[in-house]
Amino acid sequence: MKKVSIALLGCGTVGKGVIDLLAMNGPLIEEQLDTEITIKRVLIRDMPKYEQMELPDDILLTTDFADIVNDDEIEIVVEVMGSADFAKDCIEQCFKKGKSVVSANKDLIADYGMPLLKMAKECNVDFQFEASVAGGIPIVRPMYSSLNSNTMEEIIGIMNGTTNYILSNMTDTGMSYETALKEAQEKGYAEADPTNDVSGYDAGRKIAILATLGFHSALTFNDVSVEGIENIAQEDIQHAREMGYVIKLLAIARQDGDGISLNVHPAFIRKGHPLANVGGAYNAVYVRGNCVGDVMFYGQGAGSLPTASAVVSDVMNVILHCNINITGSRDFVWHDPKLKPQDSICAPYYLRMVVDNAPGVLSSISAVLAQHKISIRSLIQKDETTEIAEIVILIDSSAAGLVNQSLKEIEDLACVRKIANAIRVIEV
Amino acid sequence: MKKVSIALLGCGTVGKGVIDLLAMNGPLIEEQLDTEITIKRVLIRDMPKYEQMELPDDILLTTDFADIVNDDEIEIVVEVMGSADFAKDCIEQCFKKGKSVVSANKDLIADYGMPLLKMAKECNVDFQFEASVAGGIPIVRPMYSSLNSNTMEEIIGIMNGTTNYILSNMTDTGMSYETALKEAQEKGYAEADPTNDVSGYDAGRKIAILATLGFHSALTFNDVSVEGIENIAQEDIQHAREMGYVIKLLAIARQDGDGISLNVHPAFIRKGHPLANVGGAYNAVYVRGNCVGDVMFYGQGAGSLPTASAVVSDVMNVILHCNINITGSRDFVWHDPKLKPQDSICAPYYLRMVVDNAPGVLSSISAVLAQHKISIRSLIQKDETTEIAEIVILIDSSAAGLVNQSLKEIEDLACVRKIANAIRVIEV
Ligand SMILES: NC(=O)c1ccc[n+]([C@@H]2O[C@H](COP(=O)([O-])OP(=O)(O)OC[C@H]3O[C@@H](n4cnc5c(N)ncnc54)[C@H](OP(=O)(O)O)[C@@H]3O)[C@@H](O)[C@H]2O)c1
Ligand SMILES: NC(=O)c1ccc[n+]([C@@H]2O[C@H](COP(=O)([O-])OP(=O)(O)OC[C@H]3O[C@@H](n4cnc5c(N)ncnc54)[C@H](OP(=O)(O)O)[C@@H]3O)[C@@H](O)[C@H]2O)c1
Repeated sequence: MKKVSIALLGCGTVGKGVIDLLAMNGPLIEEQLDTEITIKRVLIRDMPKYEQMELPDDILLTTDFADIVNDDEIEIVVEVMGSADFAKDCIEQCFKKGKSVVSANKDLIADYGMPLLKMAKECNVDFQFEASVAGGIPIVRPMYSSLNSNTMEEIIGIMNGTTNYILSNMTDTGMSYETALKEAQEKGYAEADPTNDVSGYDAGRKIAILATLGFHSALTFNDVSVEGIENIAQEDIQHAREMGYVIKLLAIARQDGDGISLNVHPAFIRKGHPLANVGGAYNAVYVRGNCVGDVMFYGQGAGSLPTASAVVSDVMNVILHCNINITGSRDFVWHDPKLKPQDSICAPYYLRMVVDNAPGVLSSISAVLAQHKISIRSLIQKDETTEIAEIVILIDSSAAGLVNQSLKEIEDLACVRKIANAIRVIEV
Repeated sequence: MKKVSIALLGCGTVGKGVIDLLAMNGPLIEEQLDTEITIKRVLIRDMPKYEQMELPDDILLTTDFADIVNDDEIEIVVEVMGSADFAKDCIEQCFKKGKSVVSANKDLIADYGMPLLKMAKECNVDFQFEASVAGGIPIVRPMYSSLNSNTMEEIIGIMNGTTNYILSNMTDTGMSYETALKEAQEKGYAEADPTNDVSGYDAGRKIAILATLGFHSALTFNDVSVEGIENIAQEDIQHAREMGYVIKLLAIARQDGDGISLNVHPAFIRKGHPLANVGGAYNAVYVRGNCVGDVMFYGQGAGSLPTASAVVSDVMNVILHCNINITGSRDFVWHDPKLKPQDSICAPYYLRMVVDNAPGVLSSISAVLAQHKISIRSLIQKDETTEIAEIVILIDSSAAGLVNQSLKEIEDLACVRKIANAIRVIEV
């Protein structure tokens, strides 16, 4: 049996998962590869902290990356530290030394995936990153190796477990956003500073990665227009339910003759659609190709062992490639993307506004919409007895620019107290 | 740009789909591969029929397989004829001539997949068959290249579109099995002789293929215990609904310390489970690995272009492998399977029986169950005014052998007219 030594950069949730997984499934994995895998070194920064962890005895802990990059026995380096710059520097050094790399780092791949793949190819090493999108769910490799006969039209994902947990909880229990966030933090689904998740940045990085592969276009996180769930109120969830929808944070990449759009925002999606049923902290990615039609991938988008499952499968692929003396880095093709102006992106919208409970309010609002040629699909005004009332309007598909302009004008009306929310309806 | 010539064996639904797909997406595909793909020859048997089809002019039609196997320019052969023996013979001849093969043929792969993969390896050619399971849905390659870090515990699929269409229709509209089958035939979802689909054979072949790959075990269609949907009545669907379930034809592969079981049968699955929401002719495969947890793959399991999507992706993988001078045939590992006796397989059951509307019936039936230590979870006796009544019982998880023995004894009771159905409840 051949032998391969690997190193881990980082030993947190995912790194420890990789160690545990290899302990659990080692024999099955080694039998498939005819290769023994040894985790030789692990990079950490706080020696006392990790000496307390019960790691296998034969693993050498180090706080100096040079110990790893200069160890010629180490053929594969698994980067599970997070953050972009230090990780990028380490990975480039590994490539130069002829080491293949597996990474779970979406921050890094969303910004530098393409140059790193090019560099790996030049250095004749392998670079794989299945875990960077939707954790354990196989989606990165299927995108470029199983769906690549298609022209991709649409990729829609629920790719952030924290926000899906919060929204599902608000939907199932009627609790407020604040309470749901607090519960998610208590249960370890959300970080102390939840910005990265609730503001949609994390989902934005993942959709940039998938769209780069699916659309063969040089896209980065910068190209994604991002909006979070902080503004979703229990009222919105209930109105959605009454109208036959649920609210999800969707990451949406679309491509047609006019160009590409990349968006993350909360959206109405009709009950009964497979994405609407993705509950709790689960993730799902819905893909539409011009031949395969609609395909969905569903599973756990995070967690120690699920994410390690993807990381170790990548390691296995690298070893299979090494064993036959090739690198798996294909020549990826990337075009310069033509991004659609965000103002031109059309969708039906749900609008909720707080207004004076007075005659003429409805006609003033609908006059503004009519002026912008926005047509109303349905309108609910709750029978209020107080002096303020709530109006909920569903408008037909309209361009974001027009909708935003109309909302500004409506907000300026004397009878309108505030625009409480404007949420797109995603029709798939 | 490099050039590769391929041949098709067969030009029916899938073969024509391959021709259409290459016409639609050719440039995108060739750019990814840096290789021009030409369909040089197509094997058919009825020349006049295919001369009438509007196939591209440069394709050479032939009724003689020798024209293809002896053409040294043809590097890849796409087998989309169906049936096992002639196809197997053709594929072996291709391998011997150094040609790689892509096949969509589940009948063939379920019985001869393993020996063919071995032979491909010996002949240093590639053999791929993504389309043989669940059409366009990527599942075969993800199973062996993305989930292979896991010990697979369970694979549960809705893998036959015809039966899912029929059952979904019965559920949504209240129609009888016979009417739903007739409608499926009229709409082209079911063949004139629907046996292969409605009796569960087609799903059985697919689960044999997936379990072979997922469990690393030498399994064939022969190892699958198969039961179809012919006996599902509208009453069963309605009772299921009342109890919070839907009825689906499931293909189930399970593995634990005691061995492997492979089954196809109609089953109760609780509403709200992702598999319960798979409607119409859609397919889904639900996989549980010991690390990744639950993962589901969903999409169109049949159809001309969806299936061609999988076939052409396979062709693309073969070309990528050829371009770097390797075959993609990995060394698959297969153990001799230890199959569990079917009698030992446990599940809760739904039982429906038609009985005399007379005192003492319930106590006689429950006495038989009690004698076999089968406990009743719930029981419904409809308040009937006629002389026959219907009893519906949900029993706790019990071994199939005991259940069948009890049902025999219950059927022998004088007060019992017939056991109308016994359907397993699948708890995932
Ligand atoms: N957690 C998931 O479910 C999940 C899913 C998919 C992808 N990912 C990605 O996987 C990566 C790792 O995530 P994680 O959840 O495992 O993070 P984590 O629990 O915070 O672990 C990170 C590890 O890297 C170490 N580290 C960070 N910076 C370092 C440096 N400069 N030098 C040495 N060691 C350093 C940390 O050490 P300290 O203990 O000293 O901080 C810790 O051991 C991230 O890119 C993340 O986005 C995670
Ligand atoms: N249809 C789907 O959606 C689907 C999905 C997944 C997998 N598959 C698999 O793909 C394969 C093809 O399916 P299909 O639906 O395309 O079948 P089909 O429509 O019946 O087409 C079969 C083609 O092969 C030809 N053929 C059959 N036997 C032949 C022989 N001995 N010599 C020469 N030509 C022969 C047929 O010619 P004639 O016209 O003379 O009969 C026809 O052109 C099957 O293995 C099937 O299980 C199909």
